[in-house]
Amino acid sequence: MCAEEVLTRSYSYNVTEGTKLGIDGFLSNNRGVLLAFDQGLEHGPTDFNERNYDPAFIMKLAEEGGFNGVIFQKGLAEKYYNGKVPLILKVNGKTSLPKGEPIARQICSVKRAAEVGAKAVGYTIYLGSAHEHLMLEEFGRIQEEAHAHDMAAIAWIYPRGQSIQNDIAPEIVAYAARTGLEVGADAVKIKYTGDVETFKWAVKCAGKTKVFMSGGPKARSEVEFLRQVRGVLDAGAVGLAVGRNVWQSSDPLKIAHYLKRLVLEDRSVEDAMKN
Amino acid sequence: MCAEEVLTRSYSYNVTEGTKLGIDGFLSNNRGVLLAFDQGLEHGPTDFNERNYDPAFIMKLAEEGGFNGVIFQKGLAEKYYNGKVPLILKVNGKTSLPKGEPIARQICSVKRAAEVGAKAVGYTIYLGSAHEHLMLEEFGRIQEEAHAHDMAAIAWIYPRGQSIQNDIAPEIVAYAARTGLEVGADAVKIKYTGDVETFKWAVKCAGKTKVFMSGGPKARSEVEFLRQVRGVLDAGAVGLAVGRNVWQSSDPLKIAHYLKRLVLEDRSVEDAMKN
Amino acid sequence: MCAEEVLTRSYSYNVTEGTKLGIDGFLSNNRGVLLAFDQGLEHGPTDFNERNYDPAFIMKLAEEGGFNGVIFQKGLAEKYYNGKVPLILKVNGKTSLPKGEPIARQICSVKRAAEVGAKAVGYTIYLGSAHEHLMLEEFGRIQEEAHAHDMAAIAWIYPRGQSIQNDIAPEIVAYAARTGLEVGADAVKIKYTGDVETFKWAVKCAGKTKVFMSGGPKARSEVEFLRQVRGVLDAGAVGLAVGRNVWQSSDPLKIAHYLKRLVLEDRSVEDAMKN
Amino acid sequence: MCAEEVLTRSYSYNVTEGTKLGIDGFLSNNRGVLLAFDQGLEHGPTDFNERNYDPAFIMKLAEEGGFNGVIFQKGLAEKYYNGKVPLILKVNGKTSLPKGEPIARQICSVKRAAEVGAKAVGYTIYLGSAHEHLMLEEFGRIQEEAHAHDMAAIAWIYPRGQSIQNDIAPEIVAYAARTGLEVGADAVKIKYTGDVETFKWAVKCAGKTKVFMSGGPKARSEVEFLRQVRGVLDAGAVGLAVGRNVWQSSDPLKIAHYLKRLVLEDRSVEDAMKN
Amino acid sequence: MCAEEVLTRSYSYNVTEGTKLGIDGFLSNNRGVLLAFDQGLEHGPTDFNERNYDPAFIMKLAEEGGFNGVIFQKGLAEKYYNGKVPLILKVNGKTSLPKGEPIARQICSVKRAAEVGAKAVGYTIYLGSAHEHLMLEEFGRIQEEAHAHDMAAIAWIYPRGQSIQNDIAPEIVAYAARTGLEVGADAVKIKYTGDVETFKWAVKCAGKTKVFMSGGPKARSEVEFLRQVRGVLDAGAVGLAVGRNVWQSSDPLKIAHYLKRLVLEDRSVEDAMKN
Repeated sequence: MCAEEVLTRSYSYNVTEGTKLGIDGFLSNNRGVLLAFDQGLEHGPTDFNERNYDPAFIMKLAEEGGFNGVIFQKGLAEKYYNGKVPLILKVNGKTSLPKGEPIARQICSVKRAAEVGAKAVGYTIYLGSAHEHLMLEEFGRIQEEAHAHDMAAIAWIYPRGQSIQNDIAPEIVAYAARTGLEVGADAVKIKYTGDVETFKWAVKCAGKTKVFMSGGPKARSEVEFLRQVRGVLDAGAVGLAVGRNVWQSSDPLKIAHYLKRLVLEDRSVEDAMKN
Repeated sequence: MCAEEVLTRSYSYNVTEGTKLGIDGFLSNNRGVLLAFDQGLEHGPTDFNERNYDPAFIMKLAEEGGFNGVIFQKGLAEKYYNGKVPLILKVNGKTSLPKGEPIARQICSVKRAAEVGAKAVGYTIYLGSAHEHLMLEEFGRIQEEAHAHDMAAIAWIYPRGQSIQNDIAPEIVAYAARTGLEVGADAVKIKYTGDVETFKWAVKCAGKTKVFMSGGPKARSEVEFLRQVRGVLDAGAVGLAVGRNVWQSSDPLKIAHYLKRLVLEDRSVEDAMKN
Repeated sequence: MCAEEVLTRSYSYNVTEGTKLGIDGFLSNNRGVLLAFDQGLEHGPTDFNERNYDPAFIMKLAEEGGFNGVIFQKGLAEKYYNGKVPLILKVNGKTSLPKGEPIARQICSVKRAAEVGAKAVGYTIYLGSAHEHLMLEEFGRIQEEAHAHDMAAIAWIYPRGQSIQNDIAPEIVAYAARTGLEVGADAVKIKYTGDVETFKWAVKCAGKTKVFMSGGPKARSEVEFLRQVRGVLDAGAVGLAVGRNVWQSSDPLKIAHYLKRLVLEDRSVEDAMKN
Repeated sequence: MCAEEVLTRSYSYNVTEGTKLGIDGFLSNNRGVLLAFDQGLEHGPTDFNERNYDPAFIMKLAEEGGFNGVIFQKGLAEKYYNGKVPLILKVNGKTSLPKGEPIARQICSVKRAAEVGAKAVGYTIYLGSAHEHLMLEEFGRIQEEAHAHDMAAIAWIYPRGQSIQNDIAPEIVAYAARTGLEVGADAVKIKYTGDVETFKWAVKCAGKTKVFMSGGPKARSEVEFLRQVRGVLDAGAVGLAVGRNVWQSSDPLKIAHYLKRLVLEDRSVEDAMKN
Repeated sequence: MCAEEVLTRSYSYNVTEGTKLGIDGFLSNNRGVLLAFDQGLEHGPTDFNERNYDPAFIMKLAEEGGFNGVIFQKGLAEKYYNGKVPLILKVNGKTSLPKGEPIARQICSVKRAAEVGAKAVGYTIYLGSAHEHLMLEEFGRIQEEAHAHDMAAIAWIYPRGQSIQNDIAPEIVAYAARTGLEVGADAVKIKYTGDVETFKWAVKCAGKTKVFMSGGPKARSEVEFLRQVRGVLDAGAVGLAVGRNVWQSSDPLKIAHYLKRLVLEDRSVEDAMKN
């Protein structure tokens, strides 16, 4: 299936109205499926194939797939964003190359994010890193600037570094979620603990900060991935930011369709997968 | 006892008038009991149960319990603060995850603290840390900004790091208290030494800087905790900032009631605990 | 052949019109050959001989050779730039002397680059260095300033440091190219992988960010060098930034002539080398 | 002798006129005895007893004892300074707790120092520390700001850190004195070498920068201390900044009286000690 | 010979006109002899004797000796500069005490340098130091500020630190000279390689950036020193900055006289030394 074919089927979901401010500007009934495409900087092109390396393909996929938002770094937003899907601009980032305690600093100003039309800024905090304080401080400043520009501030909170043994241990995931609330994030993107009960606790700890599951690497099967998503929804999350599990799929619109039925229509996995 | 029940009993204490500026804006006859709830960032949700994780519960507890102030990080203040109890906004913080010499940097601007209605800003200085100078410097700037916004500046002074053997040794606690005075804090929050005489010296060394005891982890019994508080009052402190010993209690309003009789009415432990 | 003689032969290429903004201000039909002369700071005078050490010689060579642009550090631009060839001002730099993880910081302000008439700023990012985050952050700020001054921002992306085993491994070169796109560079200057297929992937990953090959050290023969250039063109690059392979040549204008026929007229190596 | 009694005896010295600008605003015929009280931050309360811990006692002592100036950190100045003695505000400081190369950063802004009525700012530079450059840089900025506010800039120059074997070696003390001159200090506060001849050289090296001896720890006897002071005066210093040798004395006003006769009236030790 | 006698003999050289801007404001026919006196901070008073420690002596020497400029740190300029000789203000500096990789940061603002009447600012870059990037960056900013104030920017470029084996190796000296040109210095102050041919290469590499020899420690004899100077002139340098070889001399005006005949009148060593 060529790229053209892949993206020709259209689904009838309405994206949330673009004039709402902040995080409500891109949720549908307090649920959302975001298409993440910041892997080019974070992981490098090893994640890509001949089709999905192309931001234009992803932009079209975000549009045709009816995603609630698309996540780009500044360069992609400036060169490929077409305004048809809400934009979440990732304002910090790093490559996977340096060793040592992780740190990512601001690459895009909040003002620039507003200029390219972002509804929200995203910022990664490596919790537990020896540089944690630098990222907490920088997020604190960015969150205030984003709100001054009527944009939401979303924190990617990833526990990482020598002090972290297991980044999906329930108490660590709950700590990540809570940190998002404490530092004033409108939403937090965290990994799934793997079971509903422990993730429910993380969602509770995030309070009024909305929780998105981080999609993570490609799952072994679609059904397995959808069950994870069902789990995070049952736990109270508003949705997920998904990248590889969609655009590494041979049929990205199909999995997007399943995800929307699951997340936006709150169906069961089985029901979502029916055509 | 469910959360609703827990907070329905009302006590007749009057909170200090909200129009006073600075630290007198939230003390009662130069005494005060502050409800601390910055543990979500500092310790993570391991401190919480199904009731007390919720900032709304804490906000209601602060109100119903007649506390002189409630201590929140920016995120909690922005999403849960209702203006019914004076707000102390903690403007720096860290998680308990990173190893190495402790450091916490500013996460909330003083301007933002003023906008959400704070009466005071709180800032933690890890005395003796290899990064002590960065925190002394940052507090120095924040204290001046806070005063320019008619807010008090409260220093949490915690001796910590490789150079500190015993953070409640009398000379260390007195040093912490004195540092608060020297750097211009309106109040200092320090640990109890464990006995009245040595803490009296710390309070003296703090001079016109008011001393709050740091509540610390949950005590073995209520009476033991109240005796500690009685000790710090006898030593000259103006009160305490208490968190876990209240909201980890099965009856938080009861312990709040005891604390107010002890601190605000200056009663004995035995008298305070009579119903 | 003396310096005078070397530069007297003129070729009839028209340089791109100087009034276009950004990177199109110095490309010819989306192709370009840039004359790099920032080696004086990066490598020191060991690269130079009695003729090519002289920026005036290089300036004249850029003009007579019909290059699309000349690359100078601030000092050379201020003292030797004559406005007859588009200027790319390299705004950071380092010497080759310090050991340890590489880092180069901003030496020339974007405002100053604009004042001396630059069409673009160049900035080196040592990908994988322990200081990568400082350079990504600084480039992010400079890119925005450059665009505000109607200048292009070109990223030299060089994977280097302890974490990099082989800086021309295909996946590393592709990662460098992609990073240029992600951080908003208008063009990226990267090393050649050595074969067309793998470099094609790098060029694809760079998307709308134009790719220049980094000329590198003097090749064993002209034909070998030209075949490398032909390879990068076949892979989709817009051209190259070349220094030593031109100005270390005994006949710089001849090799410049070859390069233009190859790059700007898109000829074969054999055809380009015909007189 | 209680605190009240201690400070009731008055001496008839006139403090220098408060309207003069800069360092002449607090010298008497180019001589001065300053009462240092920044030990609360630098050493902690271990230096204090039940009387001298109190800044109000020190403020009264400075006034009754006719000192040329009193040295406070920001917090003491804001809460205890009464305007009756010229104020030197110490704008940086550290505790004695952290190990490693010493560093003290700015805690009080120059603007704030001016607002509380300071005639001069004081700043400590740990010469030879691995962080020396940070303090030289910060002092450079503060000196310029202080002069813009018509305040003097006094440098406490203390050679310290792994590279310093003996901080009162004549060549080290002379280096400290000279550094004060080179970096633009109006006065320098340095340790005594122990003999007149070597200290004379240090004073010469300080040129037009006035030299104050640093009082240091309590001497074994009053006469021994006064002989040190006599030595520094004979060497050309303008006086001293004295703390512990006055306020740790059982009769601070007596030693203050001796010091003024010695320093301001330029008497011999024997003559100064006559009643 | 006492200080008074030393400086009474006058020579009839005219200093360059003070109204010219930039580096031409203090050269004579593109040649210059600068009197360096920043050793008080860089080396400490061990370089001084009872006469030459005194900036007033040096100021008079600069005037009577007809030097093209005098080099002071901020403190000396503010307290001793009399406007009779062009002033080069050294705006960064360090002591010789700290071990480890060398670094010197800005101590005097460019604005302040302009206020005290400087014609140029001087800044030291320790090439090859692990902190090289911080100094290259700071010089870059200062150079632009200096030019905005119509002052020249002179770079002292000293290869130093663990990565430097021999700081007068020809390729290292040429690298230092070239760095001055690349970063936009109007003049560079570097060490002599020891022979004309290799220094000629360094001067060539400096291009339009003028080269001053760094005077260095006292030579074994006057004639040996003058031969070094003759060598750097023959190599194309514009002159030297000389300190110890003048003011450690028993007859500073005599050696100044020789230097001016050598440098400004371009005589041979033998001719210059004739009376």
